[in-house]
Amino acid sequence: MKKSSYISKNVIRRLPRYLRKLDELAASGVERISSGELGSQMGLTPSQIRQDFSCFGEFGQQGYGYNVAALREQIAHILGMDRSYSVILIGAGRIGQSLIENFSFSHYGFRLLGAFEIRKELVGTEIAGVTIADAETQRDFIRDNQVDIAILSTNKDHAQSVAEELIDCGIRSIWNFTDADLDPGDSGCIIENIHFSDSLLALSYYLTEKE
Amino acid sequence: MKKSSYISKNVIRRLPRYLRKLDELAASGVERISSGELGSQMGLTPSQIRQDFSCFGEFGQQGYGYNVAALREQIAHILGMDRSYSVILIGAGRIGQSLIENFSFSHYGFRLLGAFEIRKELVGTEIAGVTIADAETQRDFIRDNQVDIAILSTNKDHAQSVAEELIDCGIRSIWNFTDADLDPGDSGCIIENIHFSDSLLALSYYLTEKE
Repeated sequence: MKKSSYISKNVIRRLPRYLRKLDELAASGVERISSGELGSQMGLTPSQIRQDFSCFGEFGQQGYGYNVAALREQIAHILGMDRSYSVILIGAGRIGQSLIENFSFSHYGFRLLGAFEIRKELVGTEIAGVTIADAETQRDFIRDNQVDIAILSTNKDHAQSVAEELIDCGIRSIWNFTDADLDPGDSGCIIENIHFSDSLLALSYYLTEKE
Repeated sequence: MKKSSYISKNVIRRLPRYLRKLDELAASGVERISSGELGSQMGLTPSQIRQDFSCFGEFGQQGYGYNVAALREQIAHILGMDRSYSVILIGAGRIGQSLIENFSFSHYGFRLLGAFEIRKELVGTEIAGVTIADAETQRDFIRDNQVDIAILSTNKDHAQSVAEELIDCGIRSIWNFTDADLDPGDSGCIIENIHFSDSLLALSYYLTEKE
């Protein structure tokens, strides 16, 4: 596949949105879609869509539109969804439990290997087929298993020290649900944040602007 | 305050990050910071920081840096944090409960007025001082109270119909935690999404790119 050397962050952030839309189209039985129609459904211009996709090579055919299934497969490939990355969850409080119960890891190509929790009263609890393990065993687990991604959903105050421990164990990427801004030092560990407050404050900005 | 007519989405998305950083600096006793130092702590260039802030008028003083408290106050104002927006939670499952328990609504200037849930077994439960109310009462509650923001954390399958009901009741903005892409129709209702999958897939992209 032809691939530009530089892909902007905005394009990368839009790819999962395209993927969701394509899943929705496929579920409705749509097999082919034009950039105009896709744009109108997503609030984007046809030229923006063509430009986004051109970063990764040629997906569509002039005047013929995009094949929904093929486009979905290529975007999934670009996003690494066909790599079957393994995931563990560190911190099985309410938010962690919610992810185990509701997030479709397998739909997106991820394998949830386990969940770890420091509070003894939660250890041994089973949620959606996953038994919460003792946080004391997580280091051995990471050593003995190939773990690609650690979800961090501990208490904010422990976030940095737990992250450092994970990095020390060889974890290369952290999906961070704590409101802490983690410092990966010079480890090169990828940190992807879910900052709830950033999102609510953006909403608040738009609400204020409207008034 | 001088304000440009157009502020890019990227700048708006960075403002909450600045706010978090300024809170952190204030907590560490820092009273004044240069754009160079702020940039190095945030992984941004000094010129980007100066450009971001210039959208909203002049915050800093050449060669003297930014006053942390004053800058924090102005960004908070821009983000509407001084408007005391009221919030209700629709859907008090694990993720909703986690927000009630862990999200610092008041720190960011919001007032959580109530939480509603359709499952009778959860109605009456108290979490961090908030008693879960019956979803059947939410329409009356919205009619009788000034509600600015509804948090939607119901089941994905009900998300669109619940959103329509909320909009019908006069809700002007929805903070959407369901993985559904909500259609506000022509209501003008602001929808701000927390799409967990978009975030994990971006992480997956960066992990793939690194290999």
